[in-house]
Amino acid sequence: MTARQRQDGDGEGSTANRTTEPASGGLDVRLGAERLATAVDAAAAVADECRLTVGDGMAFRARDPADVAMAELRLDREAFDAYEADEATFGVALDRLGDAVSLAGDESVRLRLGEDGRFDVSAGAVEYAFAPIATEAVRAVEWVDAGSVAASATMAAGDLRRAVRAADLVADHATFAVDADERTLTVAASGDTDDVRLDFDESDLDALDAGAVESLYSVDYLRDIVGAIPSGVPVTVEFVGGGEGGCPLSLEHAFAGGDGTGRWLLAPRIRR
Amino acid sequence: MTARQRQDGDGEGSTANRTTEPASGGLDVRLGAERLATAVDAAAAVADECRLTVGDGMAFRARDPADVAMAELRLDREAFDAYEADEATFGVALDRLGDAVSLAGDESVRLRLGEDGRFDVSAGAVEYAFAPIATEAVRAVEWVDAGSVAASATMAAGDLRRAVRAADLVADHATFAVDADERTLTVAASGDTDDVRLDFDESDLDALDAGAVESLYSVDYLRDIVGAIPSGVPVTVEFVGGGEGGCPLSLEHAFAGGDGTGRWLLAPRIRR
Amino acid sequence: MTARQRQDGDGEGSTANRTTEPASGGLDVRLGAERLATAVDAAAAVADECRLTVGDGMAFRARDPADVAMAELRLDREAFDAYEADEATFGVALDRLGDAVSLAGDESVRLRLGEDGRFDVSAGAVEYAFAPIATEAVRAVEWVDAGSVAASATMAAGDLRRAVRAADLVADHATFAVDADERTLTVAASGDTDDVRLDFDESDLDALDAGAVESLYSVDYLRDIVGAIPSGVPVTVEFVGGGEGGCPLSLEHAFAGGDGTGRWLLAPRIRR
Repeated sequence: MTARQRQDGDGEGSTANRTTEPASGGLDVRLGAERLATAVDAAAAVADECRLTVGDGMAFRARDPADVAMAELRLDREAFDAYEADEATFGVALDRLGDAVSLAGDESVRLRLGEDGRFDVSAGAVEYAFAPIATEAVRAVEWVDAGSVAASATMAAGDLRRAVRAADLVADHATFAVDADERTLTVAASGDTDDVRLDFDESDLDALDAGAVESLYSVDYLRDIVGAIPSGVPVTVEFVGGGEGGCPLSLEHAFAGGDGTGRWLLAPRIRR
Repeated sequence: MTARQRQDGDGEGSTANRTTEPASGGLDVRLGAERLATAVDAAAAVADECRLTVGDGMAFRARDPADVAMAELRLDREAFDAYEADEATFGVALDRLGDAVSLAGDESVRLRLGEDGRFDVSAGAVEYAFAPIATEAVRAVEWVDAGSVAASATMAAGDLRRAVRAADLVADHATFAVDADERTLTVAASGDTDDVRLDFDESDLDALDAGAVESLYSVDYLRDIVGAIPSGVPVTVEFVGGGEGGCPLSLEHAFAGGDGTGRWLLAPRIRR
Repeated sequence: MTARQRQDGDGEGSTANRTTEPASGGLDVRLGAERLATAVDAAAAVADECRLTVGDGMAFRARDPADVAMAELRLDREAFDAYEADEATFGVALDRLGDAVSLAGDESVRLRLGEDGRFDVSAGAVEYAFAPIATEAVRAVEWVDAGSVAASATMAAGDLRRAVRAADLVADHATFAVDADERTLTVAASGDTDDVRLDFDESDLDALDAGAVESLYSVDYLRDIVGAIPSGVPVTVEFVGGGEGGCPLSLEHAFAGGDGTGRWLLAPRIRR
């Protein structure tokens, strides 16, 4: 997949066209409700609305209002039990889609674009219809793929969650650092009187590509993000760029039994 | 059982007598705490107080203050492990009786009318005593048995709960409809922008006696009622009368291992 | 153990010295996180801060601000997997230590006094550092061992909890009474209209040394205390002194697999 494909649709112009003529873009897919729920709940960790890009699978992309975090939840075509769809981009209110999917329980769910231009989510006897949001009214997500990676590590989602929970006990921001000599990834946070620190060495990590980086992130955002990452999957943590003032944190993990990919980008917090 | 027996006692006069001379009406029964708890919690779904009618078993009957819903939870004599009781009707504060029964855990519980005219609930080492409410101070429940049934269906409690939960996501009221030609029971609700609809056909239902009806009900009441119906039992849904402006909804289901019957009557909401 | 040892340190003077020269008192112990968590959570049932006395094990002692209840949670040396410590007494903010221990999950946790005079709690990759509170700023606990015991009983923690929960449903205070003739322990409470009463006879109790006592206690304190006692252990209940106006209630139970002892002392509430 190219970076181009990952962006929303083919540009604002054509996207807007599709939104105003929804009947021209067909959509009729079926997949396990739990897969769709995971993607929707994850995107909801950073925003109330997202752009749903359809084309050889589906991608939910959301950016938070303060422009600090973005999420991309991609379901490959293999994640679907049935798939018929034209390329298109929609705006989606995540609580609506989440409500609709929640009614499916653990059944298979069908997502369709109805003739009236509304989404139609059905599972068993239930059918839930709601309108898309105008695509251009939803913040676009331009994923920053370009930056070089200063350091990266792969760790268990549970370890990452534990680190964020620990930082959350003492402070509003956490420092992630990689020590190239010690070959460790450290998460640390300092409150007024308390300090917490987690050192992950190579025995704790699935992989480590160590370069010297240190950057500060908001614990609020981290907590929402790690809460949306499924338990039991390895998460690849990348420090993008790696300049003096901190660097964006990129997280990537599989979901939907390997047929989906979650990606997160979190801007560094400038040290006070 | 006749409709007469289902009503409260033998009339206001004799009931009042019993209330003021409680010692004349003996009551000493024993049953599984969970059976009594189910009846009490269910009655509490529509009101804070109920009338407890004793006589060849027990019936808890409650009517909500706005006169929209009524509940009858009947425990047959077979539901009891021991049963000695004269016919009588009492007013009961459901939170008190619920508290008392909750102390029994999953043990057998004994409900007695003490010499001081108070209820005495005991289980193991615990004994909880509280006074009845004056019977005439509790809304009487006159069950409407007379109406002809325009349509009826029997469905799983879980399906009914799911339908109400779905409606609750989008609106304050839900339409129940039976299509005599399609042979379906439909629950539908429309919010400002979202619609939800559940179609149950004969394969989804345990039974269907289809007549054309359509009626609107309050989702708030429905939610309380379906929350009080035990999981895993079939519920018989009847549309009573079936006039133009909507018709009362009657629900009936077994509980207490078949030795108890829950009945609910919900008035239609007049379409705005 | 003598009553002297159970008191905090060797006097205010030497304690203060240790606090200001923490490096002189070494502390480096390791134990199951769950054992430490039980002790910390229990002490937190009566106060926000406690005194931690180290010496042949550890004792957490806390007294509530209104001077109604006190708790002592003692971990014998056998409760530790590793133990190196000089005698000392510290002030501890229980929420901090509780947070630190919670990060350990069910692992082994190491509690150390760092060179900077701060506590250092570590488990796996996590390390949490926080400062002790000045010992003299924490209420000292002088345990009243001297009083004669008027009556005592040993009962299941679950029965005690059930009695307190029952009393809590109807009133703010509960009467504990032992009847020397009937050989029963009774817990009773009376609300405006409801009464609750639990009679435990010798068949319900593990032991009973019956003397005639009756005393009133605050249900709020009892609820916090019984909530902190582990399930499934026998609790020894003692009525200390036994004068006319009520007598202190002493509770004692094992924890940490028998390598720890919890003790509680609750002042009687003077009858209105």
